[in-house]
Parts: sequence; C-alpha cells; structure tokens
Amino acid sequence: MRIAVDAMGGDYAPEQIVAGALDALDSLQDDKILLIGPEARIKELLGDPEVWQNKIIIHNATEVIGMDESPVEALRRKRDSSIAVMAKLAKEGHADVILSAGNTGACVAAAQMRMRPLPGVERPGILVVFPTIHGPLVLCDVGANITPKPSHLHQYAIMAEVYARKILKVENPTVGLISIGQEDAKGTDLIKSTNQRLKDDPSLRFIGNVEPRRMLEKPADIVICDGFAGNIILKLTEGMAESIFKYIFHEFKQQKPELLQHFMPVVEKIYAEHDYTEYGGAPLMGIDGTCIICHGNSDASAIKNAIMVSLKQARAGINEEIAKRLKSLEE
Amino acid sequence: MRIAVDAMGGDYAPEQIVAGALDALDSLQDDKILLIGPEARIKELLGDPEVWQNKIIIHNATEVIGMDESPVEALRRKRDSSIAVMAKLAKEGHADVILSAGNTGACVAAAQMRMRPLPGVERPGILVVFPTIHGPLVLCDVGANITPKPSHLHQYAIMAEVYARKILKVENPTVGLISIGQEDAKGTDLIKSTNQRLKDDPSLRFIGNVEPRRMLEKPADIVICDGFAGNIILKLTEGMAESIFKYIFHEFKQQKPELLQHFMPVVEKIYAEHDYTEYGGAPLMGIDGTCIICHGNSDASAIKNAIMVSLKQARAGINEEIAKRLKSLEE
Repeated sequence: MRIAVDAMGGDYAPEQIVAGALDALDSLQDDKILLIGPEARIKELLGDPEVWQNKIIIHNATEVIGMDESPVEALRRKRDSSIAVMAKLAKEGHADVILSAGNTGACVAAAQMRMRPLPGVERPGILVVFPTIHGPLVLCDVGANITPKPSHLHQYAIMAEVYARKILKVENPTVGLISIGQEDAKGTDLIKSTNQRLKDDPSLRFIGNVEPRRMLEKPADIVICDGFAGNIILKLTEGMAESIFKYIFHEFKQQKPELLQHFMPVVEKIYAEHDYTEYGGAPLMGIDGTCIICHGNSDASAIKNAIMVSLKQARAGINEEIAKRLKSLEE
Repeated sequence: MRIAVDAMGGDYAPEQIVAGALDALDSLQDDKILLIGPEARIKELLGDPEVWQNKIIIHNATEVIGMDESPVEALRRKRDSSIAVMAKLAKEGHADVILSAGNTGACVAAAQMRMRPLPGVERPGILVVFPTIHGPLVLCDVGANITPKPSHLHQYAIMAEVYARKILKVENPTVGLISIGQEDAKGTDLIKSTNQRLKDDPSLRFIGNVEPRRMLEKPADIVICDGFAGNIILKLTEGMAESIFKYIFHEFKQQKPELLQHFMPVVEKIYAEHDYTEYGGAPLMGIDGTCIICHGNSDASAIKNAIMVSLKQARAGINEEIAKRLKSLEE
C-alpha cells in the first residue's frame, strides 16, 4: 500500500507528522509512505536517509491550507497545497490511502472532488470511533453531510456496519439512530423516515432511536446521525470532558491541594483508557479509496496509529464489501 | 399570583411535589398554589390543614400522563389528567402560572393548545439556564420546536434576551448561534439565514456562531439553537457529566479507595455550584402566561425553587416586554 500523508496538516505539523511517519516505518510491510509538503523542510526533519529512504517518498508541495480557511475556496486558490497535491496523487493512482490532520472541510472536499465515490454511494460520511467504558462506539456522520436525506443515513448505517465488523471485529453490530426520544415517533421527518428505512432493512440489527443522554453508555455498537448533530455531539463531548476535568482540578487545588498528586494518575488512566487515537483517524466512508482525517492536535503517536489503522482498513476489503451490500440493497 | 402545580408530574410525584409546594409557602405573598391531582392523596400528603389552608387550593384530577406516553394522544385520551386540568385552569383564567415535572411534550402541547400565544410570537420555545463556571448560560430552544424557521430562532433570541436581562439581571447580554464552526458560512441553510437575521437586528448583541465545544466556557450569555440540536446538547451534557463522574469514582475505587472520601466533597461542591435547580424550571417562552417545565427528577427543593423563580418571572413583566420588542421588529 502507498499511504500519502499530509505533512503540513494539524497543530503540530510538520514536526509531529514527520515523526509519526518515521515511527510507523518498522510496522510497514512492502508499504510506502508518501510525505507531502515542502521537500527541504521534510528532508531536514527526516534526518539520516539510511533510516527512511526505501520506505518514504517526498512529494513537494509549497502551500498550506490553514485550519480556519474556507475549504472549497482554499482548494481553488492553493493548487499546490499539501491537501490538494495529496488528493491529486490519489486521483492519479499513486496513493491508496490519503491521511491528513489538517483542515477537515478541505480534506473532505478534496477527496470528494478528486477521488471517485464508491459505486452506489450517494454521499460520503465521516465515521469516528468513540472510546467508552463499555468499548468502542461508532458514530457516523460527524460532519461531511449536514443536510442528509434518509437514504444517505441508511447508507451510513451500512458502511458503519461493515467497518465495525471488519475493523473493530464486532460480530453482528447493533445500530441505533440519534433522536430526542426513543419512541419511533420522536424526532424530525428525517429521523422518522430513516427509522423506518433502517427497520425495513433485514441486513441491519437496528435497535431503534437512541438518546444522546446515553451516548457514553454505548447504547449500540453504531450510532447514526446527520452531520450537523454528529458534529455537535463530537465537539460537545470533547469540550465537556475537558471542562469537567478542568473544574475538578480547580476544586482539588482549592480544597485539597495536597491530594492533587493522587488525582493525576486517576485522570491519566481514564484518558489512557479513552484514547481515541487508538482507533486511528476518522475515515471518510464512501469514496473509492481510503481517506483518513486525523484530529488537528495529533502528535507523532496519533499519526503513527492513524497510519497503522488506515493500512488495516485499506487491506480489509471494506470498500468491496460496501459496494456489494449497496448493490444488493438496490435489487 | 396563582401558581398551578401538577402534583402528579415527575419521578418523585406526588410526595416530593407536594413537599416542595409546602416548602414554598413561607415565601409567598398574596399568592396561592393550586395543587392538581387526586384530592384525597394530596390532602393526606399536605397534613395539618392549619399549615396550608389559606395558601393551597386542591384541584382534583384523576388521571396521570406517563413520562413516556405520546403527548398529543395522551392529552386527547386523558381529559382528566393533571396536565390537562392544569392547562384548563390557565385557559379559564384561574391560574397565572402552570408548572410540571411531568411529560415535557404533553406540557408543551397542553400549553400550546390551551393558552394563547403571545402577540407576535410564531412558535413557543423552551429556555433553560445552564450553570457554568463563568456564570449562567441561557439556551433556547431545547425541544419545543425541532424544525424551526429562521424567524422562529430570531424570536427565541429576543425572548431569551429579555429573560436574561429581567430574570438573570445580565446587562446587555450577548447572543450566539450554535453551529459547527464560527465562520458565518458554516452550518445549514437554517443557520446561515438565522445568522444573517441576528446580525441585522440592532437590538441584539449578536457575536456570531458559537461551537458546542465551548459551551461550558460560556461563549455568550445566550445561545440559540433549533430544538433538535438544543435537546441533544441538553441531554448529552447531562449524560456526559454523569458518566464522567461515574468513571472517576470507578477509577478512584480501583486505584485509591482510601482517597474516595476526599473526592466526595470536591464533587459535591462542583454539583452545588452547578445546581441548575437554582434557576428554577425551564420556561416555555412565547405563550400568554407562564409555563414552567421542571426536570423529571425534581425533588422538593427543586420544585420549591421552580415555584419561586416562576413567581419572579410572572411578576417581571417579561411577556409585555417581549410583545413590545416583537412589535417594534415588525415596524
């Protein structure tokens, strides 16, 4: 496999991205990593060529799309940005996987514009794996498609189901649909139509609507939602966890500063057990190829994990399985 | 003021509801509490008539709408339910305030069907006050209107602004709009149109889109959202807080059971500082009267607070101010 990595994407690029690529080298088989970014700088960070020269290929890109830039406009203007060059490599058949911790919107747009959709897929969706105390929870879509149709959400359920089985090794994964109440009649027209579609699909183990209150209790193996709600859930969860731990630290410091040292290991263990980087980056499901979107704050270890999981995904035949499932749905 | 209280609504009804009403008696002026539910049972719970007979009036209601019943259907079937009788009292001019910890949907539907909308209001919305470390944050709508139009969200901003000034005593409150990115161009068509409307209204201190990640950092005094997203935010926040504290307890117990006793007061202080019952129940804004929806798990203290805040709201002239603001908007 050839994995194209955007060396300029994310808060700690290029240093941590390049370091992550180097860390991944030992786990590669015949695979190659293509690092996209300013050649001289990347070479400098890679260091001794003996270590990497047979496994890493540098593809020069002189521009960078910022985290806050408008995706489509930035892609149009910055033809030589690392994200644009990365997507072009995939389009021209030089890369099997593309991976970036940069501007998510630009990454999704580049993949959608440059890579073909999988046969039968109406709209790609971003899938994330949430760590919970009861095991990994798959959430899809978290922002690629903010005004989906019921058929899109139905396809997300199928794609996530294949992912959960093939990558997370969940047998017969259950599927839930995010709504504001468990009853079938609760929610918008989109939710009600989607609920009916999922219920009517015998290939899915649909358990009905699930409420966000129970998200961390893992109400199902897979939870489906529109990209607007999914993005809110993803970001709110992250922000809440940060805020709550911050409150607790603050209170400990005020009330029992001498105990703060004992609280740290507890928090560290919780963080370690809920380390989402373990599951790699978030795949954009439904394109003909493998596109992985990493968190903006990815460090070398997160990038290394994302590379490893992306390889697993590219080798697992997920896309073939999805195309087959969607085809049988049409029949 | 006459405050009609649904004695049968909520997880701890009727005991805790009746106890809350009794606790509120000392703080009443000329006000009266109307307790709605099975007369004999309520009388029994009220105890010595000397204590309450000049301040509490019992209105008999023989049926109860369950927490999970379909609101509109239940209201149609159970004409003598406490919620139906409560709304009827308001309709007939016998109550200034209605208050329930029961089925939220039934409460909203009863208020909408029985009480008139405020002049100029297109759709009522539920407002909640979120406690954060930086002070109270107002969120509206959290579930009354799951497919709003931009004009509805605009009205929620105005109603919430009046509430923040009159009840929370916030001078010149800032208003934000929940979206999946801060930039004006981020979000659904609903969000983009609403953003433009809020920006064009000189009576509002609109600060633009806010991301859910920063919710607990209080990005603005008021955050506006559609009822579907708002309900997700409300429920997810509640569930997350519970889950995270549960994780921490679990880890402490595993790692340092001897320190659990020191952790408890820290958590208790955080809970006390973030006690949403301090701000009373959630008002349904935009109806001609005062309708307060309490959390299903309300205890006597929560009910007492809700009664007190509802009185404050009913006396503050909020509805008159809202009607005036909406009228000037039309001109």
